[in-house]
Amino acid sequence: MKILLIGAGGTIGQAAVQALGSRHEIVSAGRSSGQHRADLSQPDSLVALLEAVGPVDAIISTAGNLHFGPLTEMTAEQFKLGLQDKLLGQVQLALAGHRYLNDGGSITLTSGVLAIEPIRNGANATAVNAAIEGFVAAAAIELPRGIRINAVSPTLLTESLPTYGPFFPGFETVSSQRVGLAYQRSVEGAQTGRVYRVM
Amino acid sequence: MKILLIGAGGTIGQAAVQALGSRHEIVSAGRSSGQHRADLSQPDSLVALLEAVGPVDAIISTAGNLHFGPLTEMTAEQFKLGLQDKLLGQVQLALAGHRYLNDGGSITLTSGVLAIEPIRNGANATAVNAAIEGFVAAAAIELPRGIRINAVSPTLLTESLPTYGPFFPGFETVSSQRVGLAYQRSVEGAQTGRVYRVM
Repeated sequence: MKILLIGAGGTIGQAAVQALGSRHEIVSAGRSSGQHRADLSQPDSLVALLEAVGPVDAIISTAGNLHFGPLTEMTAEQFKLGLQDKLLGQVQLALAGHRYLNDGGSITLTSGVLAIEPIRNGANATAVNAAIEGFVAAAAIELPRGIRINAVSPTLLTESLPTYGPFFPGFETVSSQRVGLAYQRSVEGAQTGRVYRVM
Repeated sequence: MKILLIGAGGTIGQAAVQALGSRHEIVSAGRSSGQHRADLSQPDSLVALLEAVGPVDAIISTAGNLHFGPLTEMTAEQFKLGLQDKLLGQVQLALAGHRYLNDGGSITLTSGVLAIEPIRNGANATAVNAAIEGFVAAAAIELPRGIRINAVSPTLLTESLPTYGPFFPGFETVSSQRVGLAYQRSVEGAQTGRVYRVM
């Protein structure tokens, strides 16, 4: 398969590359790394990427920023950051990207454990990740030509523990290898509208 | 209790009024009806409302618009409508409103059955309603002074059947009386971070 992977430079993107790269042609894109430079949250940038890459069999996004901070100090503008970036960026990718998928192709978005396990400072992340999972469930029943859509929802990766561990007290971590399997399952499997939780 | 109810002019708002109005002082607000005119999606309008009403014991929102339309024709701009209006409007209400709540007060937002039961044309509604439910779960663990936050998630109301029935094939409807009870349970009960589903 030819797979467009957006966010390949990140830890989760690398997990997907490890799981899929040996058997498929991966075209990588990202804001600051990858074969193509693209910003999901900018519609023009996204369409230019899709046009440049051409028809593919799978699209994966492991990209998107969120706002983390105390609820009692959070502003609407800060909350909007996650909406615009991780949520609307990935939604735009699905809304525009399905036209560039071959029949029976797939879209795999990335949510995260906070969708169902809130932490302090994480209200934006929980809302955005829950919205991504909702979008996937709803989009799955309307996509044409056998196109599928799923989300992978990883908890904290073991290799991210030094950086993010303090925000996730007592959370078990998962290996990037296990996270990669979830992307493989979404891309090579046959299900749609699923959230593959890795936790 | 003194309760600020935003969206009192709608069918669901009226259900809340019926359940709570006889035992509590309800201050109603809405875009086009109510004792105060306010638009949740406009921060200035929202803060002006909160200042005008002063300290309250409960805030309820039954307000917010969504975009309905086929996924394959949906644009990012259309998807943004629901994000800005029903999601960000209610989030802004919570982020600003908790400062105007007395100790032990409550915030009750409104999501909807599409959060967990997608329909055709409903991808925006499912994502937005899921995000509201996520936000409530996360905000509950950070709100200070014993302030609680819950969501009410009603399915189609029986009295809305003539207007919206065709979009909800085979869905059982619920009475406005049952929906009103869920708002009562959120306001007068002691739980937080809950989604009260009426379906």
